[in-house]
Amino acid sequence: MAIDPAPLVARAITGDRGAVAKLISLVEAGGPAAVEASALLYPETGGAYTVGLTGAPGAGKSSLTDALIRRLRADGTEVGVLAIDPTSPFSGGAILGDRVRMQDHAIDEGVYIRSMATRGHLGGLALATPLAARVLDAAGKPWVLIETVGVGQVEVEIAGAADTTVVVVNPGWGDGVQANKAGLLEIADLFVVNKADRPGVAETVRDLEMMLDLTGEMAWRPKVVQTVATRGEGIEELWSAIGEHREFQERTGRLARRREHRLRDELRNIVFARLRDQADATCAGDRFEKLVAQVAARELDPYAAAQELLGA
Amino acid sequence: MAIDPAPLVARAITGDRGAVAKLISLVEAGGPAAVEASALLYPETGGAYTVGLTGAPGAGKSSLTDALIRRLRADGTEVGVLAIDPTSPFSGGAILGDRVRMQDHAIDEGVYIRSMATRGHLGGLALATPLAARVLDAAGKPWVLIETVGVGQVEVEIAGAADTTVVVVNPGWGDGVQANKAGLLEIADLFVVNKADRPGVAETVRDLEMMLDLTGEMAWRPKVVQTVATRGEGIEELWSAIGEHREFQERTGRLARRREHRLRDELRNIVFARLRDQADATCAGDRFEKLVAQVAARELDPYAAAQELLGA
Repeated sequence: MAIDPAPLVARAITGDRGAVAKLISLVEAGGPAAVEASALLYPETGGAYTVGLTGAPGAGKSSLTDALIRRLRADGTEVGVLAIDPTSPFSGGAILGDRVRMQDHAIDEGVYIRSMATRGHLGGLALATPLAARVLDAAGKPWVLIETVGVGQVEVEIAGAADTTVVVVNPGWGDGVQANKAGLLEIADLFVVNKADRPGVAETVRDLEMMLDLTGEMAWRPKVVQTVATRGEGIEELWSAIGEHREFQERTGRLARRREHRLRDELRNIVFARLRDQADATCAGDRFEKLVAQVAARELDPYAAAQELLGA
Repeated sequence: MAIDPAPLVARAITGDRGAVAKLISLVEAGGPAAVEASALLYPETGGAYTVGLTGAPGAGKSSLTDALIRRLRADGTEVGVLAIDPTSPFSGGAILGDRVRMQDHAIDEGVYIRSMATRGHLGGLALATPLAARVLDAAGKPWVLIETVGVGQVEVEIAGAADTTVVVVNPGWGDGVQANKAGLLEIADLFVVNKADRPGVAETVRDLEMMLDLTGEMAWRPKVVQTVATRGEGIEELWSAIGEHREFQERTGRLARRREHRLRDELRNIVFARLRDQADATCAGDRFEKLVAQVAARELDPYAAAQELLGA
């Protein structure tokens, strides 16, 4: 009952939405079919420019994504969207609500929106996301937006693995200790202070600029853009800033280097996931249990037992 | 210049403090000497009972550890302490202060206190902590206290890898969302509401009991003990509760099962660390760079490249 990815890839390349959906499910699930799909899709990719959006739950990432979709569609440009739902019990509700709102675009053939949450066999979202983005790339979407909640390290990494990474904050962001602040500063190509109609926006912009001042010499200094995404305010400025960053990267050769760096990370992730699978397989079964019993009986120490397991 | 662990182990077994210190440093550093030390130490262990203490920064874990040391020393019982300092910039200061306070025991030959923070080659604290605990066990300490900040997953795991795990909270703990609450509930054999002279203690005890009620049938229902560690209040009750939990586990055979389960986890951690080292080694060097270049040139897709790397 294995799905043959070849006809799906052939159809997805023509922009067939059903084939795109099935292919993303296939790469999410992982396994040999996903590997085969990757090989078939890869030569068809490289045309899409990816934009990652990340920020705390409730920062307004989905509203911004929604506004960017509208901006792209106003020019008739097609766009693919991957909304990465972490499997966190805390954020599930809000994200679901946002997804429902995004269904405004459901009848627009030029927009393809997909939520991803499954953790596939190949090592979860960090592996599945670039594969899914390649499906949209191969399907001819010139822009792919990747929206993640900037909570866990994996989510931040996923948003950082884009051509342009937008970090979304709100007025008051500078207050208090936030464990992820440093991680978000590191990946940001642009900052958006969303909900900029709320008090404290000037202070937050100032704090961000000060933090950027402290970073020292930067070839590209992240812009800080103010938006009220739900009213479409500041979206033109955000869109221009994304364009400027893209142009800067293309002009300086940084885009190619950034993509190569990303491939290097992806390759490492794949190798690591394979070896993790191998570790899981090694630590199961009769042989493993027998060694555990020997260690428990103090006939063997844990390191010697590991050596025996790995020596085989 | 490699250190030979054999004479160190021989001296540590007699209780030699210098040898104990050097051996813990050796297992922290990892590598072949740590593996050799493990093999030599392991047959000498099994006598110590380990108690893990964990909780949020500032909950008073070090004061409780200090009070437990005094309680043990009042009976003339020897004790080893491992204070796990996460390498977090946020908690460094407070922990350092606590360590300084614990120096009260520095002239007491029956107490051995050691801070651990280094992330060794074998895979960090999760691997080094059981090895260090075995050094203290082999050195004849009948009790080993392992204190960790219950912030990250690794720290919680380390505290959970004890014979009895004590989770330290403060009045008001029930308020607000705390990501680690579920993880702490899962590992707790005992709860301590420390700083019980502060307002809200009754509500926190009630909240904890309610959470325990919701957990359903439990062979062992974690006790909730109130303490004011800095004044020594409630320490006798805590000490009794630890003794009851130990007695319960010994009587029911759970202690042996728990220790076997822990060995199984440790073995898995060792295998995983070995394979991670292998992944790091695989993803470096000329061969890796050549494959990255081929992937960047779209001559090869990332999964095929990983296959080539791992096939060798």
